[in-house]
Parts: sequence; structure tokens; C-alpha cells
Amino acid sequence: MLYSVDFLSKKIEEAVQNTSFDLKPKSLFDPISYALSVGGKRVRPLLTLLTTNMFGKDVDKSLKPAIGIEIFHNFTLLHDDLMDKSDMRRGMPTVHKKWDANTAILSGDAMMIEAYKYVTSVTSDILPEIIELFSTNTMKVLQGQQFDMDFEKRLDVTEAEYIEMITLKTAVLLACSLKMGAVLANAPSRDAELLYNYGINIGLAFQLKDDLLDVYGDPKTFGKNIGGDIVNNKKTYLLIKALKMSNEKQLAELLRWISIEKFDKNEKIESIKKIYNELNLKLISENLIEKYYLAALDCLSAVNVANERKKELISLSENLMYREK
Amino acid sequence: MLYSVDFLSKKIEEAVQNTSFDLKPKSLFDPISYALSVGGKRVRPLLTLLTTNMFGKDVDKSLKPAIGIEIFHNFTLLHDDLMDKSDMRRGMPTVHKKWDANTAILSGDAMMIEAYKYVTSVTSDILPEIIELFSTNTMKVLQGQQFDMDFEKRLDVTEAEYIEMITLKTAVLLACSLKMGAVLANAPSRDAELLYNYGINIGLAFQLKDDLLDVYGDPKTFGKNIGGDIVNNKKTYLLIKALKMSNEKQLAELLRWISIEKFDKNEKIESIKKIYNELNLKLISENLIEKYYLAALDCLSAVNVANERKKELISLSENLMYREK
Repeated sequence: MLYSVDFLSKKIEEAVQNTSFDLKPKSLFDPISYALSVGGKRVRPLLTLLTTNMFGKDVDKSLKPAIGIEIFHNFTLLHDDLMDKSDMRRGMPTVHKKWDANTAILSGDAMMIEAYKYVTSVTSDILPEIIELFSTNTMKVLQGQQFDMDFEKRLDVTEAEYIEMITLKTAVLLACSLKMGAVLANAPSRDAELLYNYGINIGLAFQLKDDLLDVYGDPKTFGKNIGGDIVNNKKTYLLIKALKMSNEKQLAELLRWISIEKFDKNEKIESIKKIYNELNLKLISENLIEKYYLAALDCLSAVNVANERKKELISLSENLMYREK
Repeated sequence: MLYSVDFLSKKIEEAVQNTSFDLKPKSLFDPISYALSVGGKRVRPLLTLLTTNMFGKDVDKSLKPAIGIEIFHNFTLLHDDLMDKSDMRRGMPTVHKKWDANTAILSGDAMMIEAYKYVTSVTSDILPEIIELFSTNTMKVLQGQQFDMDFEKRLDVTEAEYIEMITLKTAVLLACSLKMGAVLANAPSRDAELLYNYGINIGLAFQLKDDLLDVYGDPKTFGKNIGGDIVNNKKTYLLIKALKMSNEKQLAELLRWISIEKFDKNEKIESIKKIYNELNLKLISENLIEKYYLAALDCLSAVNVANERKKELISLSENLMYREK
């Protein structure tokens, strides 16, 4: 049986919304239920289930570990929002706003243990591999987050450093989700590695697309405010390339906008976007996204499974790539 | 071979100080090395090694998981210090003071994953039991921390609630350390459970002793300032009992001291200590400590191992019980 993306999405959403923590005190666990219920696309558990299903194995057995990855992902959002002092996520107040900073710290910590509990709910024959996979990759996510924070204080971040950072912060957890689905299906290790690499490439394409949409997205469909990264001097692929490629005049203009603290938001966005346009960064960025996307598809096509069984995974990848939000 | 507490302490300290995290960026891992190096008595890994050794098994095989528990314990201190806004620990600046709050959050998160990596470095036959033991008990520690924070906002905490809170916050990790040493030694599960209960009782006695020393300790030998708990209105066993047992006049006096924000520290300490003395709380507290200590020794004596092999564990328990700091 090959399940559709929609069917598995519904199964995951139902399982996430029904996740209850029968432990006390409520002051510790209510914020966890809240953080999990707020939503999102549930891409990571979906990747795990799609992969297990691709190999023809029982998706229900992969559900708990898949939700464990989703819990971990939401834990990182919870602590990231606190560190970034972000007050809203997906249109709802963040945990440290709805409760307070200490609640966000401790509930986040508890979420990480909860994530381990879910992820390790697997048969003992694959447990060592699952734990190694999860611990190594969750650590990479935190390393990526630290690089990201460190980069905010620097103006000389290279393109290679940036790619390394988003590999860690974003791509490895997608890769881990896919490989976990393969390990849970007892797939050959070569296929599991190919799916991991597929995830790395899809993740890079996904994050670069996110950077691009922040500037060139359609305000009507893009979920966040256009230009938010520009306003906040976020070191995106576009800004890093611009700092590297700009001539003396453009560089002076960029540095001026980065340094001033009081400004008109739209004026800053338009001025920096003008430089991006002059440097042809939209096309350069789209080409790089295309490169990673094609590399991802190469990995997937090498997986030793009938093409027919790969179509839902490809359909999800296309949704992620050609999204306008 | 039966190793002494001193010998195993040195082995652990050496291993902790040599623990290196060969991962980047340094901004994430330097605070972890710092937090671990600052010290403490390393009681938890010592309990694990003493237990493994009691059963005549190789302590070196227990070293990594034992250090994993120490890493987890230091992670809780790191986040607790941030939540409590404590600037110093063991005479050194805390991580959020030496670096900043975000560093303390993210490095703490990374420590938890590192703890899992160490604890799960065991043979696959016992891995499921080790993970279940670790996840369940680390979650209890966080539950205890949340109860503790919740109790700070209440004046009606009962003795039973307090014992439950310190069971979770302090005793279970000691119990977990002991049981882990038994599981690592492939000891019979009955013995592992007896050691867990031994740890719960020793932990309760230990924490009640800590509460007592804060008021009645010798300022020359006690590590912290005498009366710190009184100054901060900390809901200790003594304060909870005092609120419950005091007459109308004593209660009014207690509530007055708890509510005023500006006061002379020594005057507050002396006034509250006078009420504790009137209520005979030192003796009541000592009797309860004795009760838990004897219950602990009962558990230990029921463990199916020659008495000769228990003497180092008993020696450590005595050190913890009859300490004056």
C-alpha cells in the first residue's frame, strides 16, 4: 500500500494533537502541548513516514519515532524564539510570551527528554542505530544554531561557511528524518545513506528558497513579512553574496544600511533589494537552488526501490521547492 | 578487587577533566567544558562506579555512562542558575554571567544531548533498560524543578508535597546513578531496585540535611552563607514545618518576615531561627533524617552481596550524612 502525502499528513496531525503528557505538574507540560499544537507543516515526521512507506513497511511502527523528531524540532523553535526574543510564531504568542522565560527554558528541556522517549520507542535490534542517528544529528542542529548566532556578529561570513551553517541548522534534521524512516524499515544501509544525502540537498534548496522568498516572495502568499531578513540584517545567502560581490559604492551603501539603527523599513528594503537586483542575485540564487534540487533527485533516483514507490516523496519535494510561501 | 571511594573519585575527576568535545563552534562547547570543570563532589558517577564495583564488575565499562549522569546533573545546574539568576557557583561565575543567557540556554541544551551520548555508550543487551532508566529519571528531575518553582509562589505547601518535590528534584538522580551501576553490572533486578530505593532514601536524608545545615551549620565549614534559605524565603522543610506548627503569634511573625522586602539579613535570620528553636525543629528534622538514613541502610543490607563488598558505599553514605558542609 502506498499512502498519499495527504493521508499521512492527517495521520501525523492527529497523532500530534493527541499527544498527551500524563505527568505533573501541568505548569511544565501545558506549554509543551501548546507548543506542539501550534502547528506547522510537520515536514519531518512526514518524511519519516513517507520513507518507511516507500520501502513497503508498516508506517504505524514509525509514527512514535517520527513524532519524536517533531517534538525535538518544536523544542528548538521554542528555545530559538526565546533566544531571538521573537514574540509570535505562526500567528500565536510564543511560550516565553504566553508564560515566561523560565517556563520556556524548562519546558523546552522537558521536550528534549520527551523527544528521546518517543524516538527510542523502537525495537531493540535497531535501537543502537536510531540513538546514534538521533543524537549525532540533533547535536548538529544546535551547532548550526550557534554558528548562526556567531555569524550575526560578523560581516566576513563566506558562502562556504553559510552553506555549512544551514546544512547543520536546517538540512541535517530533514536528512535524519528520512534516514530514520529507512532504518525503521530495515532498508539497506546504502539506501539509508542515499536518503540522508537526498535530505541534505533538499534541505539546502529549501533554506535557500526561504532566503529568496523573504525578498522576492509574493506578500499575498508568503507567510512572513517580506523583507524581514533585510530589516534585521540577517546573514542570508543573498546578503553574504552581496557583501562579497558588490563594488565599492554598493558595499558602502550596504554597510551604511547595516549600521544605522533608525530607518524607514521600506526604504531599507528597497535600497538593499536594488543592490541585489544590480548583482543579479535572484538568478544566482535560483541557479544554486536548482543545483541542490537536482542533486537531491539524483540521490533519490539511486535508491533501490521501484520509481512508482517514490512518487509521494517526489511530490512532497516539489511542494517544498515550488512553494511561494 | 574492591576500590576505595578515593580511588574511584580520582578516576572520575580525571575522566571529567579530560572530557573534550571535539566539535565546533568553540562558542558552544567551551561553556560546557567550563561548567564541567568547575567541580563538585561528583557524587552521582561515584555511586554508579561504587555499585558496579560492589557487584565485582569492571568499573571502566561504567565510566562513560557514569560521566553521562554527571553531565546531565551539571546541565541542570547550568539552567537552574540561569532561571534563579544565581551569579556564582562553587566560587566561580556561572555560565550566564561569564558568557550570557543565550549561551547558557544553548550550551545547556547541547549538554543534555552530550549526556545522552555518554549514557547510551553501553552494550546493546542493556541499552533499552539504560535508556528507559535515564529518560524516566531525568524527566523526574525537571518535574521536581518545576514543582520547586511553583512552590515558591505558595505558602500552603504541605510536608508531603515537599518530600515529593525533593524526591524528584534530588533523590531520583542519585537513585538512578545507583541503579545504573547495578544494570551495568548485570545485577539481578531485585538488587537493582533495592539500590534505587536506597538512593531515594539517602537522597531525601541528604537534602533534609542540606536544609538543616543552611540554618544550623557551622559558618566555618559550611560551603554557603548560613541563613541563605531564610533570607530568600526558600520553602525548605524547616519553613514548611514552621508555617504548619506555629501558633498565631509565631505565624504572624513568619509571614511578616516573608512579606517585607527591605530588612537586615542577620535580624531576619535570627528572628526566624528563634521560631524554629521554639518549635524544636532541629530535633524534628534530625529525627526525620535519621529515619530516611536507616531506611536507606535497610535497603542496602537486603542487597544480595557480601557485607564486605558494601563497605565503600556505606562509607560514602556516612560522609554525606555526617558532613558539616
